[in-house]
Amino acid sequence: MQILTDTEQSNAKSYMLQLMEEVFYKCRSLTGEGAYDTLKMIQREIGIQINEVESGKKVFDWTIPEEWNIKDAYVLNSNGKKVIDFNDNNLHILNYSSPINERVKFGDLKNHLYTLPDHPEWIPYKTSYYQKNWGFCLSQNQYDSIFTDEEEEFHVVIDTTLENGVLRYGELYIPGKVDQEILISTYFCHPSMGNDNLSGVVLATFLGKLLKEKQNFYSYRIIFVPETIGAITWLYENRDSVNNIKHGFVLTCVGDKGDLTLKKTRSGNAEVDKVVEYVLSESGNDYNIIDFFPGGSDERQFSSPGFDLPVCSLMRSMYWTFPEYHTSADNLEFMEEGKIGETAEYYLRVFHILENNKFYRNLKPYGEPQLGKRGLYRMIGANKDQSVEEFFNEMAMLWILNYSDNKHTLLDITLKSEIPFNQLLAAANALMEKGLIIET
Amino acid sequence: MQILTDTEQSNAKSYMLQLMEEVFYKCRSLTGEGAYDTLKMIQREIGIQINEVESGKKVFDWTIPEEWNIKDAYVLNSNGKKVIDFNDNNLHILNYSSPINERVKFGDLKNHLYTLPDHPEWIPYKTSYYQKNWGFCLSQNQYDSIFTDEEEEFHVVIDTTLENGVLRYGELYIPGKVDQEILISTYFCHPSMGNDNLSGVVLATFLGKLLKEKQNFYSYRIIFVPETIGAITWLYENRDSVNNIKHGFVLTCVGDKGDLTLKKTRSGNAEVDKVVEYVLSESGNDYNIIDFFPGGSDERQFSSPGFDLPVCSLMRSMYWTFPEYHTSADNLEFMEEGKIGETAEYYLRVFHILENNKFYRNLKPYGEPQLGKRGLYRMIGANKDQSVEEFFNEMAMLWILNYSDNKHTLLDITLKSEIPFNQLLAAANALMEKGLIIET
Amino acid sequence: MQILTDTEQSNAKSYMLQLMEEVFYKCRSLTGEGAYDTLKMIQREIGIQINEVESGKKVFDWTIPEEWNIKDAYVLNSNGKKVIDFNDNNLHILNYSSPINERVKFGDLKNHLYTLPDHPEWIPYKTSYYQKNWGFCLSQNQYDSIFTDEEEEFHVVIDTTLENGVLRYGELYIPGKVDQEILISTYFCHPSMGNDNLSGVVLATFLGKLLKEKQNFYSYRIIFVPETIGAITWLYENRDSVNNIKHGFVLTCVGDKGDLTLKKTRSGNAEVDKVVEYVLSESGNDYNIIDFFPGGSDERQFSSPGFDLPVCSLMRSMYWTFPEYHTSADNLEFMEEGKIGETAEYYLRVFHILENNKFYRNLKPYGEPQLGKRGLYRMIGANKDQSVEEFFNEMAMLWILNYSDNKHTLLDITLKSEIPFNQLLAAANALMEKGLIIET
Repeated sequence: MQILTDTEQSNAKSYMLQLMEEVFYKCRSLTGEGAYDTLKMIQREIGIQINEVESGKKVFDWTIPEEWNIKDAYVLNSNGKKVIDFNDNNLHILNYSSPINERVKFGDLKNHLYTLPDHPEWIPYKTSYYQKNWGFCLSQNQYDSIFTDEEEEFHVVIDTTLENGVLRYGELYIPGKVDQEILISTYFCHPSMGNDNLSGVVLATFLGKLLKEKQNFYSYRIIFVPETIGAITWLYENRDSVNNIKHGFVLTCVGDKGDLTLKKTRSGNAEVDKVVEYVLSESGNDYNIIDFFPGGSDERQFSSPGFDLPVCSLMRSMYWTFPEYHTSADNLEFMEEGKIGETAEYYLRVFHILENNKFYRNLKPYGEPQLGKRGLYRMIGANKDQSVEEFFNEMAMLWILNYSDNKHTLLDITLKSEIPFNQLLAAANALMEKGLIIET
Repeated sequence: MQILTDTEQSNAKSYMLQLMEEVFYKCRSLTGEGAYDTLKMIQREIGIQINEVESGKKVFDWTIPEEWNIKDAYVLNSNGKKVIDFNDNNLHILNYSSPINERVKFGDLKNHLYTLPDHPEWIPYKTSYYQKNWGFCLSQNQYDSIFTDEEEEFHVVIDTTLENGVLRYGELYIPGKVDQEILISTYFCHPSMGNDNLSGVVLATFLGKLLKEKQNFYSYRIIFVPETIGAITWLYENRDSVNNIKHGFVLTCVGDKGDLTLKKTRSGNAEVDKVVEYVLSESGNDYNIIDFFPGGSDERQFSSPGFDLPVCSLMRSMYWTFPEYHTSADNLEFMEEGKIGETAEYYLRVFHILENNKFYRNLKPYGEPQLGKRGLYRMIGANKDQSVEEFFNEMAMLWILNYSDNKHTLLDITLKSEIPFNQLLAAANALMEKGLIIET
Repeated sequence: MQILTDTEQSNAKSYMLQLMEEVFYKCRSLTGEGAYDTLKMIQREIGIQINEVESGKKVFDWTIPEEWNIKDAYVLNSNGKKVIDFNDNNLHILNYSSPINERVKFGDLKNHLYTLPDHPEWIPYKTSYYQKNWGFCLSQNQYDSIFTDEEEEFHVVIDTTLENGVLRYGELYIPGKVDQEILISTYFCHPSMGNDNLSGVVLATFLGKLLKEKQNFYSYRIIFVPETIGAITWLYENRDSVNNIKHGFVLTCVGDKGDLTLKKTRSGNAEVDKVVEYVLSESGNDYNIIDFFPGGSDERQFSSPGFDLPVCSLMRSMYWTFPEYHTSADNLEFMEEGKIGETAEYYLRVFHILENNKFYRNLKPYGEPQLGKRGLYRMIGANKDQSVEEFFNEMAMLWILNYSDNKHTLLDITLKSEIPFNQLLAAANALMEKGLIIET
C-alpha cells in the first residue's frame, strides 16, 4: 500500500521543511507574538480560523495566563560585555520570564541559570509558565567561559511584558460525508526546536492541505494549540461536541529519522490502534508500540477520565527518548536528516484504512451466491493451476461474503484472512457492484 | 482411549477399500448415472433414502443444472487412430462436456486440452459445470507423443447428453435420544479419485453402519451430496430444520497416510473444535490444526453467514496440500497405502466424547459430600502411599463434584484436571449412581 | 515493601516456635483432649472463643463423630517386652483407633501395621476416622527388628475411648471499619507434626495478635478447626453469613524453608490472587503459582460449588511435595530450619495491599487538574534533568488521576504503571488531601 510516490514524499518533506525554516526562530510561547506569527503562517497555507481566549478566563481547573511578550534579554559582565544574548538564540531565555533590570552578584545569578553538563555544547529549553520567575539557559561551555569569579557582578536585563491579553489557537474543520470526526491535534508553543514540535505543526498543515482537496468520509478537525493549557482550553470550549470524535491523533516528534512509534489510546484496543498497528506491521519496517501512559503530550488531556477519547500518537522517536529532546540540538539540521515525508505517508495510509474500514452485510447469506454466473469466478473448476493472483481474488471474495455479517470490519477480515486490505477492498467493491453485499 | 481394536481398524479399512473398488471407475459427476450407481451402492449398505430434485429448480442463488450423461468420448488423429479414449480413464473427459462430433485442427483443439507439465505422467481432473464447454484431460507425456504437427486435423467425438433430469442426493437419519443432530456430510461427485473423495463416501458409509447398530444420545444425519450445488440444495430443502444441528463434519480427504488435520468451525471455539482437539492431542500422534477459511469444501456452505453452523472438517492431508490432489494419481493404490481405518477410529472417539460431554449438577454442593460412607473413598486417611490409580480415582471424583456447577462440561473438567476423559466419566457415573450428581 | 524488620521477623519466628514446642507432643485429633489443650493455648494468647458441637449432629452430608481420647497404647512381644509404645511417639497410634486388649498372631497383627519402606527411619502418620479400626505406625527399621517370626504372638493394648462428646473449634473475630471479612482458616488436628500443621496454627495465632492491635479496614475472622469435618461444621454453623467473606486464606505448611507457593482461588482471578501474585513477584524471590484443584486442605470445602468463596492458600512447600510430609520427620528441627517468620511478613504485605486496594474517583476529570498551583508539580517545566524520584512522583499522580475512574483499583494501576504500590498509595493520599480524588 503506497499513497504518495517516493517523489511525492520527497516533495512533501521539502514543503514542510520550508515552512519550518520560515518560522523556526520566532520566540514562540503559550501566548504572544511569536505564537501568533506562527498561526498566521498556517492560516496563509490552509485557512485556519484563529480563536482568542482572554487572560483570566477559567477553563476547567486552569486559568488563561497573562500574555507574554519579549523585546530583548541579555546579561552584561562587569566589563559591560554582553555574555548572554537572547538575540543569539531564543532558547537563552527561561520561557515566560518576568522582566528585570538589575545588577546581581554571580552568587545570586547562578540560581537562575540552566545548563546541560552532559551535552556541554547544547542549550537546554526551560519554562516557568505558572510561577513568576526569570532565568537564562546556556551551554555548559559558555557558562564555564563566562563565570570564573564568584564575586563578579553582572547586569541582567529582561525586557518582557506579562499583561492581560489573549491565548490563541488555530482550527481547521473539513466536513466529510458524516459528522463523525478525526481529530488531529498539535502544539506550537515551543520556540526554536524542530522535532518538538515544529515537525508536528508543519505535518498537520501538510495533511490539512491534502485533506481539503479530497472528498472524505469522515470530517477532519485539525487544531493548533499551545501544549496542555491549549488542549484544555479547546476541550473546554468544545466540551459539548467532543463526542463526535471517532479517532484522534496527537502530532509530536514526527520529523526525526527514528523508527515510527505508536503510543496507543487509553483503552489500547480502539479501532485506530488496530489500524495503525496494521499499517506499521504491513510496511515491513521496524516500529515500536507503546501502551498509553498518562504522561507525554496532549493525549493526557484528551484521555483524561472525563473525556476518555480514542486519541493515539503516531510519532517517530518519542519525546524523552532522543538526546536532542528539549535542547538547541533539536534544530533544522536534525530535521533535514529526518523522515517527515515518510511520516506523512504513514498518516495517509492510516486515514485511507480508517475511511474504508466498513462493516458489510451479505444480501445472499444462505450458502455462497453463484459467483460464476456473475463473471466473478473461474469457469474451469477444480483448478489447481490457476494463477496465484486469481486464486487470491476469489478467496478475497469468499472471505468478504462469509464475514459480511455486520460483526467484522474490513480490517478484521484482513487480519483473519492475511489478504492485503486493498485487495479485500477491491473484492468488496466488486461484490457491491453486483448487489451481493452492502455497507452497513 | 481406543474404540476399535487394531484388528477392527484393519477390517474397517478392508471393508471401505472394497466399497471404493466397487465404484471407483464409475464416471461420477454432479448428476447422471455414475452418481446414481454410487448412491445405490451406499443404499444397499446402509439403506439411505435417495432424493431427487429437478433440473431448473431454484435453490437460493443457484439453479439445479441439466442432468449430464456420457456414453463415449475420444479423439481420432488424422490416421484414424484413437489417441485419447474416455474408456481408458474417465478423467480424460472435461467433466460436464457438451456433445461434439467434429473435425478440428490442432490449433483449435489445443484450447480444449489440459495437462500437468509438472507431473508429466498424471492426468488432471477438470470440470466445466456452469459454462457450456468441452475438452479433454491427458498426461503431458501423452500430449507430447500425440501432438507433433500444428496443422494436423483430428476428429473429436463426445457423446454426452445435457437434458432436463434430476440431481440426486442420499440421506440417512438415525434417531437418537434427543432431536439434536450430528451432521456428517460428504460428496460423491468426483470420478475415479480416492482421497478426494471416495474416501469420504466410504467412511461415511462405514460410520453410518456402526451408528445404526447403537443407541445414540444424539441423532445422526449423514448426507451424500454432489459438492457445492448439492450442499446448497440440501440446505435449501432443509432450511427450516438446520437448527437441530449441534455439531457437524465434512468428510473429505480422509484416506491418505498423512497426519490428521482439523479445519475448525467458523467460530473456532465450538464444542466440536474442543472435542476434536482433545482427541488429537490425547492420541500422542502429530496432527495439524487449521483455522476456518471460507474456501475448501462444503463447510463453506454450512458456515455461510445465513446458517453459521458449527461444522468442522477432520481430514488427513487437506485438499490442495498433497501432490496427487485432483489427478489420476489419487488412485486406489494411494488409498491402499493410506490410513482410512485409523481415521474411522478417530471419528468414533470424537463421537464418544460428544455423546458423553455432559454438564452436571452437584446435589450436595455445600462442602464435600462424605464419600467414605458411600464406599467411594479410602478408609485409611492421610495416605501418601496409596496407589496412583486410587489417588486419581479419588481426585477424579473431587474434580467432578467441584465442577458439577452447570457451567463446566466433562471435557472442560478434563482439560482443567488433566485427568483422562474416560476416567472422569467413570467417576461421574459412580457419583450419579450414588445420587450425588445429576446430568443437566 | 517491608512491614516487619528483619529483627521483628526473627522475633516472630521465635515466638511461633515457642508456641509450637509447648503443644508439639499433645496427641491431637479431630476431637479429644489433645485438641482441646491446643485450643486453650491459643485462647490464652489471643482470646479465641471455643465452640463445641455435639457428637451425632448432622452437618450437611456429614455427622459429628464420637469424641476420641487415648490413655495408652502399646504392643508386647511374646517375651512381654514393649516393642511399640505410644508414649515414645504419638504417631505410633493409628489416629482414632478403637480400643483393643488382645493377643494376636503376627499374621493378623501385620494387617494393622504401617511403615514407610522408602524412609526406613521415619514413622508414618495414619488415621481411620470414619471406619472403626485399630493399628500402629512404626519405622521400617523398628518393624524389621521386632517382627522376625511369623508365628510369634503379641499382646496388643489400645486404651482409647470413643464416646458421645463434642467437636471443638476456635474462632476470633476482629471487627474492622467494614463488615466485609478476611477469613483465615487453619487446622489443628494433626499430632506431633510441625509444617503440617502446627505451623499454620501458630502463624494464625501470631497474625491474630498483630491484627487485634491495629485499626483495620476489613474485619478479620480467624478459625482453628479440625481439617475437613471442622471446616464443614464451621460452614454449616455460619452458612447464612459466609457472604461477608471477601478474601480468604487456608494456612497450611507455612513453616519450612521452601519457596513460597500460592494455590489460587477456584476462579483463579479473584482480587486476592492478584494481590498475592503481586507481593510474590515484587519480592524478587523465587515462588510457585499453582491453579486451584479440589484436593488438598480446607480450601476444598470453602470452594465447593455451593459456597465458591475466594479462598486461596499461601504456603511454603505444598503438602505432598516435601518428603517429610505426614511423617515423624516433620518435626521441630524441621521447623527450626524453616522460614515461618518470613511467611508472616508476606501475609502482612498481602493484608496491607488488600486493605489499601481502593477504587478512586477523580473530582476534576476533565483534562488534568493544575497540580502546580497546589504545590504538587515542579515549577520549572520541560525538565529532562529532574530527579528520577521527582519524575516518578509526578507520574504516580498522573496515573492515579487518569485511572481514578471507579474501574481500576490501586493494584490495577500498579500493574499498568509498573510504579510500586506504596508510591502510588502515597500519591493517592496526596491527591486526596488536596480534594482532587475520593475513595469510592
